[in-house]
Amino acid sequence: MRVRNKPWAKENIEAAPQYVVSEPEIWRGRWEERFGNTQPLHIEVGSGKGQFIYGMAKAHPEINYIAIEIQQSVLIDILDKQLAEPLANLQILHVDGGSVTDYFSPHEISQIYLNFSDPWPKSRHAKRRLTYHTFLKGYQEILPPEGELHFKTDNRGLFEYSLASFSQYGMILKQVWLDLHASDFEGNIMTEYEEKFSAKGQPIYRVEAYFPAKK
Amino acid sequence: MRVRNKPWAKENIEAAPQYVVSEPEIWRGRWEERFGNTQPLHIEVGSGKGQFIYGMAKAHPEINYIAIEIQQSVLIDILDKQLAEPLANLQILHVDGGSVTDYFSPHEISQIYLNFSDPWPKSRHAKRRLTYHTFLKGYQEILPPEGELHFKTDNRGLFEYSLASFSQYGMILKQVWLDLHASDFEGNIMTEYEEKFSAKGQPIYRVEAYFPAKK
Repeated sequence: MRVRNKPWAKENIEAAPQYVVSEPEIWRGRWEERFGNTQPLHIEVGSGKGQFIYGMAKAHPEINYIAIEIQQSVLIDILDKQLAEPLANLQILHVDGGSVTDYFSPHEISQIYLNFSDPWPKSRHAKRRLTYHTFLKGYQEILPPEGELHFKTDNRGLFEYSLASFSQYGMILKQVWLDLHASDFEGNIMTEYEEKFSAKGQPIYRVEAYFPAKK
Repeated sequence: MRVRNKPWAKENIEAAPQYVVSEPEIWRGRWEERFGNTQPLHIEVGSGKGQFIYGMAKAHPEINYIAIEIQQSVLIDILDKQLAEPLANLQILHVDGGSVTDYFSPHEISQIYLNFSDPWPKSRHAKRRLTYHTFLKGYQEILPPEGELHFKTDNRGLFEYSLASFSQYGMILKQVWLDLHASDFEGNIMTEYEEKFSAKGQPIYRVEAYFPAKK
């Protein structure tokens, strides 16, 4: 996503360490301490402006959520939501989604969300897609056996690629939606992108997949 | 598919045993004899009027093809194509696609095609779908390790179901197309249905999946 430069972003982020975790490595394996409870922990890799993860955190106070976003110019929109109406079960990490194992210990995460990830349409950029096998390895490490990854996108090429990538990595597809908004799926929280693209009539693709227990 | 009754169909089929195999069980494990060569053998389960399988057989004389169709009122359209311009590498079976192991021995088939199979949209009819696990078991038996199943359909619900069914059975998705006619896929042979539905602008879904070698 091309984003506007926002020179005040860095300052605002640094001024809110209670929401944007300043040294996330030190909480690896200790997120229950940070949240002050033992609720399941779900993360979203690439949260953008945060409408999804904030909406999920609000709808599910019994679950802890962490938004991961590397671009500070959109991350501050998540922070703004937290500042306007703080949710105790939501934390924000200003880090690269490719390094999840630096911030979470094995099995520490109950579920992972990817939403409208950058499609990187050129073949030579395939390894940057968040559903490339190197990323899947990281997700697998921090999830428990049968831990689930929930992914949605409007990008046909990325979805085609991701279904095959998941399968070839050894993940099992639990359920697939090829037009989420035409389905009877309940409790969908839309991202900013999703609102925009589904309003244009484009189908939204969704999949729930899991890493089977190792044999 | 609801089809017109064609009282002459049975007679025509019986009059052409060189094309519509009258006792297919006796050729189990011996199809090379029947074709008179050792070319790879591909089958289509549910060939309908046969435009796909006839087109494939014509385009690929180096491969043997068997069309399987239980409804004689559409099967005779395959036969008509053979009568008009006979292809030595195409045979027709007037049998139920659920019993492929009765007609083919283990590893006798190199590839299986399913095209625009009946979607059986009601949950209670799921077991009739040609991508239900009991059917997959039969396909796996007659294919070699890593043998491929190629499936296309315009039916969203059936495709969603089938991707999950393949994956949960242990098949690997090699490649997925969510809009075949908008892709750069080459050599597509359209079925009668496909011509009709893609002309209306509906996306055609396609997947190539395989059964991994047993560990």
